[in-house]
Amino acid sequence: MVLFVIGLGLADEHDITLKGFEAVKSSERIYLESYTSILMVPGFKERLEKLYQKPVILAHRETVELEAESILEGAATSNVAFLVVGDPLSATTHTDLILRAKQSTPSIPVKIIHNASIMTAIGSSGLAGYNFGQTVSVPFWTEDWKPDSWLERIGENLRIGLHTLALSDIKVREQSAEDMSRGILRYQDPRYMLIPQLISQINSAAQSHKADYLHPDQTLAIALCRMGSEQERIVSGTLQELLDMSNPTEEEARAEEAEDDADELASEAELDKRRAARAEARAKKAFGEPLHSLVIVGRRLHPLERDYAASYACPGSKFLQVAQDVYGCKE
Amino acid sequence: MVLFVIGLGLADEHDITLKGFEAVKSSERIYLESYTSILMVPGFKERLEKLYQKPVILAHRETVELEAESILEGAATSNVAFLVVGDPLSATTHTDLILRAKQSTPSIPVKIIHNASIMTAIGSSGLAGYNFGQTVSVPFWTEDWKPDSWLERIGENLRIGLHTLALSDIKVREQSAEDMSRGILRYQDPRYMLIPQLISQINSAAQSHKADYLHPDQTLAIALCRMGSEQERIVSGTLQELLDMSNPTEEEARAEEAEDDADELASEAELDKRRAARAEARAKKAFGEPLHSLVIVGRRLHPLERDYAASYACPGSKFLQVAQDVYGCKE
Repeated sequence: MVLFVIGLGLADEHDITLKGFEAVKSSERIYLESYTSILMVPGFKERLEKLYQKPVILAHRETVELEAESILEGAATSNVAFLVVGDPLSATTHTDLILRAKQSTPSIPVKIIHNASIMTAIGSSGLAGYNFGQTVSVPFWTEDWKPDSWLERIGENLRIGLHTLALSDIKVREQSAEDMSRGILRYQDPRYMLIPQLISQINSAAQSHKADYLHPDQTLAIALCRMGSEQERIVSGTLQELLDMSNPTEEEARAEEAEDDADELASEAELDKRRAARAEARAKKAFGEPLHSLVIVGRRLHPLERDYAASYACPGSKFLQVAQDVYGCKE
Repeated sequence: MVLFVIGLGLADEHDITLKGFEAVKSSERIYLESYTSILMVPGFKERLEKLYQKPVILAHRETVELEAESILEGAATSNVAFLVVGDPLSATTHTDLILRAKQSTPSIPVKIIHNASIMTAIGSSGLAGYNFGQTVSVPFWTEDWKPDSWLERIGENLRIGLHTLALSDIKVREQSAEDMSRGILRYQDPRYMLIPQLISQINSAAQSHKADYLHPDQTLAIALCRMGSEQERIVSGTLQELLDMSNPTEEEARAEEAEDDADELASEAELDKRRAARAEARAKKAFGEPLHSLVIVGRRLHPLERDYAASYACPGSKFLQVAQDVYGCKE
């Protein structure tokens, strides 16, 4: 029988291909790689079950390896479908399962059904997929852990004029320090890095490395948010312009300060939490719900790419001027 | 109403997504970008019409611009679907139509429905999409036109350790010099560059530029053929090993030579044509029908990538040895 490894595409249960849908219908067992499934619409598993009229088994990323035996066991006697959000092979995460299937005795035929991923959706920015260099992932920084090796990757791309897709971090199945110290196994809500934090970290890393290839006012970028969904939002501008989009207005800042001052009982930790919540609300107002990704525009910007990307410029943006003056992109 | 720009995916009519299929069904007029449609299965337009139960209008790439007016006119009063093989925005080719729709008065809403493209299918090589640099297109060389600026692009990628996807040229709607001189408007059969010619041109360009980053015996590559189709074929090895796959055996070479010698009436031009046909037949025997693409492996090869790609190594390949000795890829 066959192990189908099926991409579900970008946004919801209807992004599967007709071929993928047929494969699911022919399968006796259906696994959903759950790490990525939380990226989709709420109740995604249930929506899939309704569409497929079949139960769907959640497979956690860290246990796919452990469960590989039972997944492949099923595939010996009937078709098995393994569903992955986006394209199933955009990262190497699932190659282990596939290799095991091929190497088992007797070997299990594997059929990959590709689909769109964020690496396809970058086309919606107007920039040509051909002109992208390597992709980077930007992890959440903490107080005392600020990894920034991804900056040099962006630099490698920019030095030869290429665009970069920067993927923002997500944290799922995290435990709080408090729960861990008490031995309570409980996961916190997933956290998603939003555009303002992504850009802040990029600017901060560029500054601390004195990177001459990246400058808040002279580097163009395009925010890609909830690509492929009904809430898709694309915004272009300089790094600084995009960052400023989620700043509070002066009036808002005054009102928030007054509110905090008035609350004399609140601890500093509580105030910090409140400020973070406000920042998140403003980020979502400016860019919508996660997932957020960012394209950093390279020097080899073509006029056709520029015109399309400029159609998404944020209000008052100097996109075209920077494209001409800094990028040398003229008609 | 809406202009839907819909990706058809990699191989046949069933690679459209459920969402794309619904959009087609809701559309009054359906255009198929015909330049890319010839890349698919034979009778593709008819297969689409059968699946959609609706007529499909062929739109030639060079006339999409001319036909844009009528395409958009239709979209003012009812939904229009514009179908593109692969992902509709992997190249910038169609951004012009989309910009026009947005800028027309009143503006026409555009909805992009992404899909897999060869840039997603590279995941099937086992190499991570993250580690790819820019993509290159390698055009057919002729007697006196041998453009090779793509070599330096491969070099840029290789110098920073990145993989390269090299797309092979296709020639469609070509006219023969003879027909043109006689004023006859007639197109020749499409021509597709196959793996052996692609590699020959790469080796030849590398040699004439004395490129130190690329060597037939020390550079690993992965041939990706008819990706996503039932005839998908993936073969890995050094550039030279892949090239040798379509060499004639000594016996074949002797037999062919004897056959040519015996045919005293054949002109040199006829013999050349015959030799080219034999080379094509051997290339197809080794790698299958077009389209063929090639991944050139970069130094930053990860052991997981290596193991998966090595599972496709051609018989007798030194893939693992070169990965260790030249690429420094150790467990």
